Amino acid sequence: MRVALDAMGGDYAPAVTIEGAIDTINDFEDMEIVLVGDEAVITRELDGKRFLSQRISIKHSSQVVAMDESPTVAIRKKKDSSIRRGIELVKNGEADAFVSAGHSGVVMATALLVLRASDFVDRPAIATIMPTLKSPLILIDAGANLYCKPNNLLQFALMGSTYCKMILGRPEPRVALVSTGEEDTKGNELIKETFKLLKEADIHFIGNVDGKDIFTGDYDVIVCDGFTGNVILKTSEGLADILIKMLKREVANLTAGRIGYLLLKPALRNFKKKTDYDEYGGAPLLGINGTCIISHGRSTSKAIKNALRVASDFAENKVYETISAAIERDIAHHERGKLAKK
Amino acid sequence: MRVALDAMGGDYAPAVTIEGAIDTINDFEDMEIVLVGDEAVITRELDGKRFLSQRISIKHSSQVVAMDESPTVAIRKKKDSSIRRGIELVKNGEADAFVSAGHSGVVMATALLVLRASDFVDRPAIATIMPTLKSPLILIDAGANLYCKPNNLLQFALMGSTYCKMILGRPEPRVALVSTGEEDTKGNELIKETFKLLKEADIHFIGNVDGKDIFTGDYDVIVCDGFTGNVILKTSEGLADILIKMLKREVANLTAGRIGYLLLKPALRNFKKKTDYDEYGGAPLLGINGTCIISHGRSTSKAIKNALRVASDFAENKVYETISAAIERDIAHHERGKLAKK
Repeated sequence: MRVALDAMGGDYAPAVTIEGAIDTINDFEDMEIVLVGDEAVITRELDGKRFLSQRISIKHSSQVVAMDESPTVAIRKKKDSSIRRGIELVKNGEADAFVSAGHSGVVMATALLVLRASDFVDRPAIATIMPTLKSPLILIDAGANLYCKPNNLLQFALMGSTYCKMILGRPEPRVALVSTGEEDTKGNELIKETFKLLKEADIHFIGNVDGKDIFTGDYDVIVCDGFTGNVILKTSEGLADILIKMLKREVANLTAGRIGYLLLKPALRNFKKKTDYDEYGGAPLLGINGTCIISHGRSTSKAIKNALRVASDFAENKVYETISAAIERDIAHHERGKLAKK
Repeated sequence: MRVALDAMGGDYAPAVTIEGAIDTINDFEDMEIVLVGDEAVITRELDGKRFLSQRISIKHSSQVVAMDESPTVAIRKKKDSSIRRGIELVKNGEADAFVSAGHSGVVMATALLVLRASDFVDRPAIATIMPTLKSPLILIDAGANLYCKPNNLLQFALMGSTYCKMILGRPEPRVALVSTGEEDTKGNELIKETFKLLKEADIHFIGNVDGKDIFTGDYDVIVCDGFTGNVILKTSEGLADILIKMLKREVANLTAGRIGYLLLKPALRNFKKKTDYDEYGGAPLLGINGTCIISHGRSTSKAIKNALRVASDFAENKVYETISAAIERDIAHHERGKLAKK
């Protein structure tokens, strides 16, 4: 599989991003990587590193999208950005997938412009896997759409459900909508309207879920707008880190602190692994015609490596084509159902 | 101090709510409690319990607001609800404060109707204290307003800052606005507009904060709309619970699992205490003319007891009057500043 990587994207780019690419090439024989970005900068970073050079190539682009740029301005003015050039490689069949740890709003808007949304999908969404007390779940949208209409959330629910069946192998994913309480009437107008749509949709909709129950493991797909999803994702990441630090401090205060810590260490390590964003790598943008994996802005080389693997697996298993077909079928089925009722 | 308690409010009401009232009376000699709700039900619950009967009285009300009721309907149709009657006691000076673990949207709307908002405040907000890696912070709004305008968030920031100075004793609270990234340009239109207002306001505004950094202890006041605040509050609660469960499981899997658990137990207990919502009791509704403390729907008797103490302390120390005066001064100062610029 040939994956295009935004070499300029991410808080620690290009050094750490390129390091992730080299590690991937060295560990997986079936992968080729196209580093997209400033050729001079990339060449300098690669200089002196050991890797199989025929499996890494460079696609030059002269512009970089900064993390604080407005998506509309970036799209209009930076037609030679690493994000744009990378996504074009997928469009032209020169790469099987694209990975970026850069500005997720710009990746989303560019993918929509260049690759186009799947039929029946108005807005693509980021679907991310998160750990729970039991098995992992899918959170959709994790940050692509900061404003949503009820119909967008309905489509996220359908896409999330299809994706969950496929990627987590759950035959009938339990779908829940994030609100301020589990009662039908809780939440703002967006939630109340969406609730009605989800009740009618051909998915296993459980109802509203409040923050407290998201991670109990009783749900497979958690649906929300991208602002809320981003807050849930990042708050959870931050809290997992902080709770571990607080707990270490508590253990250090024990009389048997040293022994306690040694005992706890393997448990904490396992826990950290389970809640570590880096382990999950990247999250796909669902609902576009192509494979685009969005990685965290703070991606380490390990996270980049995992994102590249996710991208390669996606492309190899034709996940996007299968999901697109399923989504189209589900959404078309839903639309027909609505028409039939009229 | 005389505190009116919504005896019918909360998921475990009236039994657990009334138990919290009895525990409070038995532990604190300076408190009187008025149980507001169905007299027959309350009398039955009190029957056979040991407490100083002259410090508990009953205010009958014939209606109960259910958790799944629409606030507009509840306000219009339930004029004899325990929430309405309880808040009226504060209005008439028959109680110094009101506590409810019932429908927070209805408490907020009723308080606004009966007690009125403070001068210069358009929408009251719930200010809750949350633990961080260092000292606790104030999260405002924790769930009262599911829709907000930039001006509402500005007022929350001013109220939160004033409240933080007073209750946490920080001379110059560091205020941050919840967004999807720390850059000025991240977030939706509400965030971008609010950012501009906060930059001009007479507070120590640090800038945007994303979920990951909320709990680092680097901020004193976290500002957001009530939907987002509710999600942050409840997700954090849920995660702390789940973390403890996951850790217990990891420790149990260790070779020295049993010993490890016994050793770690006190640390886990301390940790739970620090992250336990019940310990913090209730959160005040800031920006209304009176003391109203909102407690969690899932309040245990311990949480009710803590909320009653918070209410009594608030009333005794004239927190609402002081805050109202400070808020009026700050907001008036801000409004004058705006006029001067025109």
